[in-house]
Amino acid sequence: MDIATLVGVIVAFMLIGTAIILGGGSFVAFFDASSVMVVVGGSIAATLISFPLKNFLSVFGVAMKTLLYKLDSIPELVEEIVSLAETARRDGLLALESRLDDIENPFIVLGVQMAVDGTRPEVMEDILRTEIDAVATRHRDGKGLLDCMGRFAPAFGMIGTLMGLVIMLGDMSDPSKIGQGMAVALLTTLYGAIASNVVFLPCAEKLGFTNKQELLAMEIIVRGIMAIQSGENPRVIEQKLNTFIPPKHRTNNNAA
Amino acid sequence: MDIATLVGVIVAFMLIGTAIILGGGSFVAFFDASSVMVVVGGSIAATLISFPLKNFLSVFGVAMKTLLYKLDSIPELVEEIVSLAETARRDGLLALESRLDDIENPFIVLGVQMAVDGTRPEVMEDILRTEIDAVATRHRDGKGLLDCMGRFAPAFGMIGTLMGLVIMLGDMSDPSKIGQGMAVALLTTLYGAIASNVVFLPCAEKLGFTNKQELLAMEIIVRGIMAIQSGENPRVIEQKLNTFIPPKHRTNNNAA
Amino acid sequence: MDIATLVGVIVAFMLIGTAIILGGGSFVAFFDASSVMVVVGGSIAATLISFPLKNFLSVFGVAMKTLLYKLDSIPELVEEIVSLAETARRDGLLALESRLDDIENPFIVLGVQMAVDGTRPEVMEDILRTEIDAVATRHRDGKGLLDCMGRFAPAFGMIGTLMGLVIMLGDMSDPSKIGQGMAVALLTTLYGAIASNVVFLPCAEKLGFTNKQELLAMEIIVRGIMAIQSGENPRVIEQKLNTFIPPKHRTNNNAA
Amino acid sequence: MDIATLVGVIVAFMLIGTAIILGGGSFVAFFDASSVMVVVGGSIAATLISFPLKNFLSVFGVAMKTLLYKLDSIPELVEEIVSLAETARRDGLLALESRLDDIENPFIVLGVQMAVDGTRPEVMEDILRTEIDAVATRHRDGKGLLDCMGRFAPAFGMIGTLMGLVIMLGDMSDPSKIGQGMAVALLTTLYGAIASNVVFLPCAEKLGFTNKQELLAMEIIVRGIMAIQSGENPRVIEQKLNTFIPPKHRTNNNAA
Amino acid sequence: MDIATLVGVIVAFMLIGTAIILGGGSFVAFFDASSVMVVVGGSIAATLISFPLKNFLSVFGVAMKTLLYKLDSIPELVEEIVSLAETARRDGLLALESRLDDIENPFIVLGVQMAVDGTRPEVMEDILRTEIDAVATRHRDGKGLLDCMGRFAPAFGMIGTLMGLVIMLGDMSDPSKIGQGMAVALLTTLYGAIASNVVFLPCAEKLGFTNKQELLAMEIIVRGIMAIQSGENPRVIEQKLNTFIPPKHRTNNNAA
Repeated sequence: MDIATLVGVIVAFMLIGTAIILGGGSFVAFFDASSVMVVVGGSIAATLISFPLKNFLSVFGVAMKTLLYKLDSIPELVEEIVSLAETARRDGLLALESRLDDIENPFIVLGVQMAVDGTRPEVMEDILRTEIDAVATRHRDGKGLLDCMGRFAPAFGMIGTLMGLVIMLGDMSDPSKIGQGMAVALLTTLYGAIASNVVFLPCAEKLGFTNKQELLAMEIIVRGIMAIQSGENPRVIEQKLNTFIPPKHRTNNNAA
Repeated sequence: MDIATLVGVIVAFMLIGTAIILGGGSFVAFFDASSVMVVVGGSIAATLISFPLKNFLSVFGVAMKTLLYKLDSIPELVEEIVSLAETARRDGLLALESRLDDIENPFIVLGVQMAVDGTRPEVMEDILRTEIDAVATRHRDGKGLLDCMGRFAPAFGMIGTLMGLVIMLGDMSDPSKIGQGMAVALLTTLYGAIASNVVFLPCAEKLGFTNKQELLAMEIIVRGIMAIQSGENPRVIEQKLNTFIPPKHRTNNNAA
Repeated sequence: MDIATLVGVIVAFMLIGTAIILGGGSFVAFFDASSVMVVVGGSIAATLISFPLKNFLSVFGVAMKTLLYKLDSIPELVEEIVSLAETARRDGLLALESRLDDIENPFIVLGVQMAVDGTRPEVMEDILRTEIDAVATRHRDGKGLLDCMGRFAPAFGMIGTLMGLVIMLGDMSDPSKIGQGMAVALLTTLYGAIASNVVFLPCAEKLGFTNKQELLAMEIIVRGIMAIQSGENPRVIEQKLNTFIPPKHRTNNNAA
Repeated sequence: MDIATLVGVIVAFMLIGTAIILGGGSFVAFFDASSVMVVVGGSIAATLISFPLKNFLSVFGVAMKTLLYKLDSIPELVEEIVSLAETARRDGLLALESRLDDIENPFIVLGVQMAVDGTRPEVMEDILRTEIDAVATRHRDGKGLLDCMGRFAPAFGMIGTLMGLVIMLGDMSDPSKIGQGMAVALLTTLYGAIASNVVFLPCAEKLGFTNKQELLAMEIIVRGIMAIQSGENPRVIEQKLNTFIPPKHRTNNNAA
Repeated sequence: MDIATLVGVIVAFMLIGTAIILGGGSFVAFFDASSVMVVVGGSIAATLISFPLKNFLSVFGVAMKTLLYKLDSIPELVEEIVSLAETARRDGLLALESRLDDIENPFIVLGVQMAVDGTRPEVMEDILRTEIDAVATRHRDGKGLLDCMGRFAPAFGMIGTLMGLVIMLGDMSDPSKIGQGMAVALLTTLYGAIASNVVFLPCAEKLGFTNKQELLAMEIIVRGIMAIQSGENPRVIEQKLNTFIPPKHRTNNNAA
């Protein structure tokens, strides 16, 4: 995921840079501090008004983390849970404690820890599902924030361009400066369009995608942990969890 | 909340002011009473047509109040309800009357007062839920009104600009005035865009956010009050209400 | 309601007029019969294609009537129904006949008349609910028609402006006429924007609002009439209907 | 229906023609074969890509047929079904065969024919409902196609205008031709706007309207035919079907 | 399907080419490598950010395959399943193995193979339905990707045009080059509009259409295979599957 996001952003900016060079423009002419300020600052300010301060700060982190976060491969996840189930079946639930250090996914750790601690099943499922809801809410808020910035960026781009035009039109004594004034005015719209279409909207889109994948993984984990705790046969657990995966990706298609 | 809203609005206008200065414009050139009138007056007039008069007046207040209103922290809310439950458990329901003065949230006051008065549970829950519905409706109408103004402001901005262009085009005898006429015409569009993107739309967004939080708080209060009235154990009440909070924020995670 | 709608429309046009005077324009320059024709005529023609003729004629009336229609105050409505229930309880269902002349709301009249005639309850509720559905459909069609005109008006404004530009561009022999030709061309877009944002869209919005209120009133009436017919206690009826009203507006909050 | 559609289209084009004459333009200046080609041809080509070929051909027919199709009046429909029920009641189901030739609606013919043939009720209802689904799907596809063309027409209008501008800007050696080149370029946008707002979008809207009416009529027919087959009393059938009609339009309001 | 898609794309580009020739433009003036790069490259880069890399690669294939994929005719499909049912009825389930080579549809092959292998019915239906879900997800992702590109293409068209305008406005020393600079700038918007309206949006539309058809076919296959396995009468199977087809297209309407 991470790689595609980075590659996409770099490619997009390289394309824009190349197009400027091919078109005979200079990079200097494409930079205007005041326009950057209106678009970036304005979008952040509008988002600050739209979201409670606490959420504004936390969802930013969520958005970043989720974009950089490597998603679990679903088949590997099933394999890991089945392996935990085998340990629990062979050596008892308490034997899982020794394996806690090898598990990377903190959600599996939370579940296994509770199982080892002997937490009652209803309480355990309740806690795990509340955690899923909390993750879903954080992601939805994170996506909402990025969508918001994707809508505000072009709006502030237009606001900046209108301001530039008003300034330019107010002083047309030197006709040779009209073109340049207009160019600077247009830069703000350009910045808004780039910020929205290269950064905010695609990242919001990917966050939505990542969210669906992560919730599926968490659903599989909850089912797996609950089955391990109730001492089900590892083969039965595998078969159950495999129904989340299309046939060709299943770890061990023993369906018959 | 309050702070983020204020900070956002101030930052947005400071950014716009700075950009005008950096761009070499004068603030005088950016003020036109007639344009303000068309955008602000027009948006209010259109909203006046869109909503019944009574609602127009009341939802304005709701919007203001909700933007300035400090949301209860959910964990603190659970703590307060559990503390009330302990009092009721130890000294009986009537003992809650002495604590009424310390409670800030009027919805908890309403519930506790009814519990103290010996209102029947069905009637109590019915009244509390009708109140929740009334709050949800007021918020939805308030958000609808702000969304409405967010849509009308740019429309009246365009109407004002078209009017300015028609006036300017009708008298082009003095070419030196064309630029200025056009600048004034564009101001209305600028005002519409700023009003919509700095004030109306972000505030509508936050109202939606605040609404979700407040309804969650009210739901928790209803469950808590009903449990207190039926004399449930404070620990059980705490555990029930904690399911609304993700693990790491719980007041006392005694899950086992 | 009526008043807010009228006030809004008058204020909007006064604002536009004042802005023209302040801007130094003449009203004559802002009137163009041909542009009015394209925007108003075009919107009506497109709506005529969109809706069956019969509905086109009737929904127009519905839209007008609903905009001018004074909504029942819900608490007064509950009071009236409770008063009818008291009469029925004291003097029997037939005594309601003498009160029919005092009732303004035709839907209550319909219900009471059927109760007096001894119509069977199932048939009565069936007829009243069909009437509610019919009202809801008429309102939805009325709102749909206004929304439709609100979308078509700016489109025909643009069509008229494009036509004006083509005419102007086709004859540029006299440069002094270019400005005027362009001004006239822009008038059509201006008319479309005003028609849509001052008349059609706000009225559609209010119709939706009014509809929700009226359906709530009709729902309360159906419940009330059915309860009267089945001879329920007026106090019980009042308590039932009060659940539709938030506590502070209730006629008589005897909840305990 | 048919009439309103035709009247609307004719009125719209007459308005446009009158506006051209009033504006002092010539019709010749408003015709450009190349622009017609881009807008009409482009919209059809894009729709051809969007829909499977078979559906493209058939839904066109459906759209045409439904626009020209005269809708059954619901009260007349109820009357016809009740009259069939009376015949069946008096002379037996087989007597309906002699009335088949007088029935215009093919859906009633299908149902009556199956009833006469002694088709089992479950099979009959199954077949009739599958037919309703098929009609609903055809209409939805037809509306989707018109909506599609309504979206593509303005897009190809813009494409044509951009092409015209590129050609005009590429050869500005003769300044006197610039106006004319621009006028021709704008024609394509004008065509796209007219095609979309006078033809495609209003027709899509009406198709949706007609569809709802026709499905209601088919629903009434299914209920009526099934009741006739099961030998119900014509008066009971009338009362049942009347619940689909608001009181004031009922054929015979014998509710008591 | 395939043919309509190809015909549509070719017709659209021929129309555009003809319009250029009729308008007196040269093809050379309509080609600009830098603009192609910004629109196509930018859209791909933004999509790369929006979707996980793995999905980006696979859904592209899915989109292509589905556009070129010939849909099964539903009546032929029913005929094929009924014929398989007859074989199974006459010669036993194992006899189906000899017919596997003649079946083109891989989903039928999967189902028949499992039936021949003696897979338990619950497991079989489970596997087949997971496969349907996987296909639906792949198609929805494929449509989402095309919709995404259809939204990004015009945005990058505008970005390119703004860049071209800034370059042009920055160097207006030679007025004779202004027209040409503007023409090149507009090309990017033109490319974006064509890419979106001729390729991405219509293909997304068709993918949605194709998806609905294929899921219907898969649903019919699952029902058919399950019925074959449980040894139902071929005539009964035919009657059941025929309910998915409107009467006039049924293979053998033996309803009575």
